[in-house]
Amino acid sequence: MVGFLLFPQFAMLSFSSVIEPLRIANRMSGKSLYCWHLMSLDDRALEASNGLPFMPTLAMEDWQELDALILVAGLGTNLIADERLFHWLRKVGRSRRLLGSTSTGSFLLAKAGLLDRKHCTIHWENQASLQEEYPEIIVSNELFEIDQGIMTCSGGTAGLDMMLSLIERQHGSELAKQIAEQCIHPNIRSAHEKQRMSHEARLGVHNSTLIAAIKIMESHIEDPLSCESIAMLVDVSHRQMQRLFKQHFGITPANYYLNFRLEHGDRLLRYTSMPIIDIATATGFSSTSHFSKCYRKFFGISPKERRKT
Amino acid sequence: MVGFLLFPQFAMLSFSSVIEPLRIANRMSGKSLYCWHLMSLDDRALEASNGLPFMPTLAMEDWQELDALILVAGLGTNLIADERLFHWLRKVGRSRRLLGSTSTGSFLLAKAGLLDRKHCTIHWENQASLQEEYPEIIVSNELFEIDQGIMTCSGGTAGLDMMLSLIERQHGSELAKQIAEQCIHPNIRSAHEKQRMSHEARLGVHNSTLIAAIKIMESHIEDPLSCESIAMLVDVSHRQMQRLFKQHFGITPANYYLNFRLEHGDRLLRYTSMPIIDIATATGFSSTSHFSKCYRKFFGISPKERRKT
Repeated sequence: MVGFLLFPQFAMLSFSSVIEPLRIANRMSGKSLYCWHLMSLDDRALEASNGLPFMPTLAMEDWQELDALILVAGLGTNLIADERLFHWLRKVGRSRRLLGSTSTGSFLLAKAGLLDRKHCTIHWENQASLQEEYPEIIVSNELFEIDQGIMTCSGGTAGLDMMLSLIERQHGSELAKQIAEQCIHPNIRSAHEKQRMSHEARLGVHNSTLIAAIKIMESHIEDPLSCESIAMLVDVSHRQMQRLFKQHFGITPANYYLNFRLEHGDRLLRYTSMPIIDIATATGFSSTSHFSKCYRKFFGISPKERRKT
Repeated sequence: MVGFLLFPQFAMLSFSSVIEPLRIANRMSGKSLYCWHLMSLDDRALEASNGLPFMPTLAMEDWQELDALILVAGLGTNLIADERLFHWLRKVGRSRRLLGSTSTGSFLLAKAGLLDRKHCTIHWENQASLQEEYPEIIVSNELFEIDQGIMTCSGGTAGLDMMLSLIERQHGSELAKQIAEQCIHPNIRSAHEKQRMSHEARLGVHNSTLIAAIKIMESHIEDPLSCESIAMLVDVSHRQMQRLFKQHFGITPANYYLNFRLEHGDRLLRYTSMPIIDIATATGFSSTSHFSKCYRKFFGISPKERRKT
């Protein structure tokens, strides 16, 4: 019996990707290998992020009926600060049941202290935020992680691959393949496959110098380099690098770099409770006021206002 | 405004894959590019194949509010024979709204006569059935097809690729890529990618002679060849071929071939209304009684009993 604990504004695609392999496992094997229950924090109906309502089928207090529990979280998970939830999660964790999460659910397992010194993953949008808030956790960018009875997943269709991996361990690869073919998911992904597109595909850019420069920028957020140093590292003149960025993105390398750091700061604002001064430092700004000024110029609102939305 | 007409026992993964890209398009663009409604044939709640209930939000008679209609069907679609539905579908079709389907929905568009002389696709399990029942339709094994205002899709996660293709046409590739990355679906698939695994991956077999023999069997269902001829075609002795099948599958080539034809017949029984005598012919049996005898031996029930389940 697998319980899916749904949180308000959860993503229905992430949920479907973890529940449907169980249903198809039953259909393809002709046996009741799995059954499932839906739960919600207050035992009442709640809405997915697409507005559709879902109704719990098991009360939170009846969790002992479960063999496994998977948290299906969505937008706003970092705002959940319900101490009773974390207490309850620790109790479930101590009972040695299989625990899992998809999308932003890793935040909740982390807050409950269940991920300490464990390998885990989360949606790429939230990786830096999770790592900044919980330095004792080993956050990877795997599609999914299964470590000491805790499965975490990056969300979306990666939930399929995580569940197929679980079903393969429990009932063999033949069944896992049949399920994947039913889902028109013929390329079962290993945990190590990438969450994101390549830079080339995502940015629509095929110039290797440009890609190399962008990768350097992305790996120096807290400690930004000068554009001159980056040009030197990728073996072109600063003038040439400026032409490349202008041609592909219509802006200077300095502006591209600044925007990238601001978008990173924006994710930290939205997905962590870090003080703004720490976010300014983590994105390479010398002061909160400088960060706030640049942020407001780019996003049209101040970091403080963003926190409130 | 996109309407999703849900049918009893629809697959929630297929549904999520077509609705969620719209929600994420709104989130990533910061605009209300799409909105959606759920509908059901009798305007009442219905269950997905995993048992979860869904509630319609738009009455069937209010279909004129829609810009597009997508049929989300599931198991048992071939049993739907509601003439009012087909009449209604033809009316929607004449209004030149965008029409689409996922999973087995193509059956319904076909029954309404909306696919005549059009390219369409359907889940690989149902391709032969659809083609047998509607010879005037051009059934492909593409992931999805978009032909003259009708989108059809093989189901499961292929719905994501179909909707990403639609969103790309309507709002550009930049947005489509952002949505794919949100869904942890970094490899957007073209319509031409395969629905199924390679024979090697599916069967766990890497012997090229064996694979070649199996492919010949699969392409001669109505007109089976002798195993001696197949051995000759793949350039081994009959004895060698027998050893290969025994070693990999534990049965003779003749039995493998027979089982394959029976499984094909089983799909025709379940997904079409073809008379059993026609199914016997379509799977290469000389008589209904021979087909029935072999079928019962393999599946443990008779073809007639199967039809009733």
